[in-house]
Formats: sequence, C-alpha cells, structure tokens
Amino acid sequence: MRLLIVGFGTVGQGLAELLIEKKQQLHDIHKLDVTVVGIADMLKGSVYNDDGIDLATALEAAKANKPLGELPNAYDGDALSMIKAAKADMMVEATYTDIKTGKPATGHIRAALENGMHVTTTNKGPLALYYHELAQLAEAKGVKFLFEGTVMSGSPVLNLIRETLAGSDISEIKGILNGTTNYILSEMEEGNSYEDALKKAQELGYAEAVPDADVLGWDALAKVTILAAAGFGARVKPDDFPCKGITEITAEAIAEAKARGKRFKLIGKVWREGNQVKGSVAPEEIDMSHPLAGIMGATNALTFATDTLGDVTIVGAGAGRIETGYSALVDIIHAGGK
Amino acid sequence: MRLLIVGFGTVGQGLAELLIEKKQQLHDIHKLDVTVVGIADMLKGSVYNDDGIDLATALEAAKANKPLGELPNAYDGDALSMIKAAKADMMVEATYTDIKTGKPATGHIRAALENGMHVTTTNKGPLALYYHELAQLAEAKGVKFLFEGTVMSGSPVLNLIRETLAGSDISEIKGILNGTTNYILSEMEEGNSYEDALKKAQELGYAEAVPDADVLGWDALAKVTILAAAGFGARVKPDDFPCKGITEITAEAIAEAKARGKRFKLIGKVWREGNQVKGSVAPEEIDMSHPLAGIMGATNALTFATDTLGDVTIVGAGAGRIETGYSALVDIIHAGGK
Repeated sequence: MRLLIVGFGTVGQGLAELLIEKKQQLHDIHKLDVTVVGIADMLKGSVYNDDGIDLATALEAAKANKPLGELPNAYDGDALSMIKAAKADMMVEATYTDIKTGKPATGHIRAALENGMHVTTTNKGPLALYYHELAQLAEAKGVKFLFEGTVMSGSPVLNLIRETLAGSDISEIKGILNGTTNYILSEMEEGNSYEDALKKAQELGYAEAVPDADVLGWDALAKVTILAAAGFGARVKPDDFPCKGITEITAEAIAEAKARGKRFKLIGKVWREGNQVKGSVAPEEIDMSHPLAGIMGATNALTFATDTLGDVTIVGAGAGRIETGYSALVDIIHAGGK
Repeated sequence: MRLLIVGFGTVGQGLAELLIEKKQQLHDIHKLDVTVVGIADMLKGSVYNDDGIDLATALEAAKANKPLGELPNAYDGDALSMIKAAKADMMVEATYTDIKTGKPATGHIRAALENGMHVTTTNKGPLALYYHELAQLAEAKGVKFLFEGTVMSGSPVLNLIRETLAGSDISEIKGILNGTTNYILSEMEEGNSYEDALKKAQELGYAEAVPDADVLGWDALAKVTILAAAGFGARVKPDDFPCKGITEITAEAIAEAKARGKRFKLIGKVWREGNQVKGSVAPEEIDMSHPLAGIMGATNALTFATDTLGDVTIVGAGAGRIETGYSALVDIIHAGGK
C-alpha cells in the first residue's frame, strides 16, 4: 500500500510513529506493507518520491520543527498538486478542522477520490458538511472513504455501527462527544467555578485560547451531524440541529442536580422519529445509574439503543496524538489489510 | 446460505425470530438470503429438508411445546447424524452449556467443521476447553469458526478484538462477565442479605435453582478462558486460572467498601506478563471513578487496556434470548454476508 499523508501535525505524526513501530505486526498479521510516498504540510513543507520517502527522517524533522523542504525528495508544489499527480493507493487527510467551511480538507479528499485513492480522514469539517457527496464519489470510483477518527478518536464507533452492529436497528445514539466540556463539568462538580475550570483545561492543552468550538457545543454538533449522516443516512447539515453549550451552567445548578442524584453532561444525540432523523446538542441531567453519568474528565462515551442488544455503550479517549493517529491506521488496515 | 440450527431452546428460537423479522433487511443490506434446512433438538425433536423447512411453523411449535417430530419434514436421527449428512453452509450450535466436559456441543462442532460448514456457537464449553483444536480444524477446512455470543452475548466483544481493535496491542481485558452475580451484589448494596438477593435473582430467572456456576465464578471463568485463548492466543484451560466467587462477600464488607468510595465487583480478567498469559476470577474493590464501578444490575462490561487507545470499555447486556440469538446472526452475516 502506497500512502500519502496530507497534514503532518499531531495526528499525521502520531500515525507515522505507529507505522514505524507496528511495521512488522502489520506485515505479519494483516499482510500489509505500507510505503509512504509523500507528505504534504502547509507549514512544514512537503516531500514526495514515487519509490517511497524516508518516514523516520521526516518524523524527526517535523518533531524538531525543521522544514521538510530541506530533506531529500523535497516537493515544491502545494498539497492539491501532489494529490493530483501522486501514484498512491490511499490518502490520509489530517489537516486542521474548519467546521464552518470544511476547507481545505474537502478539496484534498475530492482530489484524492478523483485520482482513485482510498481516503481516511480525521477531519470533521468535510464529513459534517459534505458526507453524502464524498461517499458517492468514493463509490463511483470504487474506493473506500473512511473516517473512524472523526468521532471519539480511534475508539471504534463508526466501525461498530458498520460492522459489529450489522443487522441491528439503531434507534438512538447518545453520548458525551467532547472531552473538554466534560472535563470542565467534572472540575465544576469538584467546586471550581466555570472560569477556573476553563483556565485549567487551557493549561492542560484540552481547551484552546478561544474555546468557543468546545464550550458552545460546535465540536459535539459536528460529530452529531457525522453520526446522523454516516450512521443513519440522513442528508443533514450542522445547522439543522439545535445546539447549546455549557456556558450557562452554574456551579449551583450542578450542586442541586447532584443532590437529586443527577449529573450534568453535555449530551450530543441523534435519533429516529418516524422517517425523520433528529439531532441535538445540549446539557442534560443524567441519572447517576446511567453508564454515561460515570464518565468523568476528558473521556468520551456513546450509548447505542438497539433492537437486538438493548443499550450498548462504548467508553474511550476523546482525543490524543496516538489515539487519533491509530484511527487512521485502523482505516488503512480496513482498506488494504487482510 | 443454507443453515442448520442445533439446539432449539431460547437462543435458537431467538435467532429464528430474528431471521424471520430481518429477512428483507438481510437481503437488502447484506445480500444474504438464509434458508434453514434443519433444526435438531434433543428434547423437542428434529426436522430436516434439503430444500428448506418452514421456520415460522417450527418456531410456533417450539413455543407451544409441541414436538417438531409431528411437523412435515420430521427427522428421525440424532443431531450428530443430521450434521454429518446435511447439505448446509453453516451450523448454529446452541445446545446447553456444560463447562466441565463441553459435551455434546464439541462433537457437533467437530462434525460440522469436518463436513465443511462454517460454525457459530453461543456455547462456552467447547470454546473454554477446545478452542485451539476447533480453530485449527476450521482453518484446515477453509471455513469460519465464530462465537461472538459466548462473551457478553451479542455485545461485540470478540469482533472488537478481531476487527475494530486490529493493530492494537491489548495488554489486559478486565470486566464484569456474569450478570447474575452483578445483580446480587447490586441488591446487597441496597441492604439485602446474600440469601435474599440470590432468591430474588432466582425469582427473576437470572439465577438457576443450583446457582453454583454463577456464584462460584465458573461462568465468568469460562469466559476468561475464551478471552485468553481466542483473544490472546494462549493455550489454556479453565483450571489454569484461580477462581473465586461471591459467596464469601458480606453486606458489611460491601458497606465498608462503599464508605471508602469503592464497590465490590466480581472481576474476570486476562493479562500479559512477559510471554505469559495470566487470568483470574475474583471479587475486587473497584474505585467509584472507574467505568466498571457504575455497572449495576445484570449488565456486563469489559475494559480493554490498549497501547493505541488507552482504555476502551464496552457496556452491554450479559444475557437474553434476542441478545444471544443476535450474536449468532452477526456471525452468520460475517460468514456469508457482504
């Protein structure tokens, strides 16, 4: 399998580490030999070679903040020109997420599919905005379009829907889809104010300097939209669903809920209502006996309500360099392994 | 796909219901048309027809406790002779579990594999005792040997290890594998004595009249052995692992643990220690912040410690007619669907 990596930040580097570390295992267990032929990054520069680049050297350079353009096989054009010209079987799209426009990732994915490559992406923008168009293009080209890393990082949510819950009717998917807000709510339950909890989350690298995408619920909303589109087949956009974040929850409200045996969680959910698919993001008081109530800190969790198994809940990391890099690896194995 | 169902109790009947109810969905989504050619049951009698039997009629008879031998296509021989002579693509083995001998299920499975059929079983005995022999026979015959229903019913534990955690190193699998004992411990925390909680579990049909297999930990031990053999590739038998049940836990010990922020759970686990695979079943005090602590009642849960995703926990039903029947359906889709 000849691989192109577009976007060489934390996720791209996490994947590169796994490809190096698990080379033998991929060969032995999955009959899969991965050769990275190109890496394109807007800030770090790019390398390309039809016969494969030296992944370890590229990883070392990226970690040391040295430009890839100074390595052998430096590539002069932008990501899009590399994707269009590349001889590769699969592209990993791991550029930054823009939930409002889906750029530039959507253009990269479209070009790779057009060029006959399988695609895996960890990027929520293209999925939340253009899932059906991209899935149809992939089908027309006879290639796979995979995106396990967009919801709960590498935790096997989308694989679960597609493969292991095959034959089940899922009536609702509901859970904690944003680790930052769950961390803040956990801290507030310990007696911290919203402001202090946010500041701590920022110091730990969970929350960004402008925390809107997390605290206003947009990140969870993108994931809800992906679940609605890819899980339930609905033709929906993020704007179709009501979205409320955690900024109005007070420490007093959390304490009062606790006294009643309840706990506030920012819940994203999609469900069927007749032929319609509904979705929402909003704080909910969860009963302490529900598996979601016990999910504290930056952890994520989703409960699937099924006709065949009742409720099935999966709990796992919501983010992380290796975790998200791994989601791309699972998709690579899925596309090319045995 | 031509299917043989051996054992037509709750699980076999649950599967039959799903095959009828989801016929169109299996055809549309998985390009799978299932024809049941035979049903063999030691108590209820047997039916067989090369062209397919009438599944709805057989299900109706079984539910009304009428012998299958009075239906059209009645079959006179025993299960083993039917398996050896049948023209079928796959056998569902759903006879009663004997953890000590694995009989009669192991003989049924061996015969079906020899006859070139895929096999799915919900029966823990053959797996805990003869996993490697049966897996090798299946490989030699070029057929699949599947058993999703043996651990956490239809909740996708074994599929998770095989497919969705592909590429991960799993260092430990640990959890609540027996719903009956978890129910009893939950009731004891509410202030009931062990005796009262057991009686209530028996009244609800969770516990049997002779509850030893549950309360002494043997059922969990069989599942631990299956996880060690099929998940970690270890050549082990149930007797290789220490096993302790819940019969010595007192209401006082539970109350004391609660005061310390802990909760008793009967924990089954397997883990790697160098090149060795270890396993055990024993009550443990779980910290209330761990996802396993919040699992109450008859629910099951397993936490996988991985190198790529940290901890991933799956929570779901531990038993049930439809749930376990569904596990066989997932395996059937896996073997014959698209």
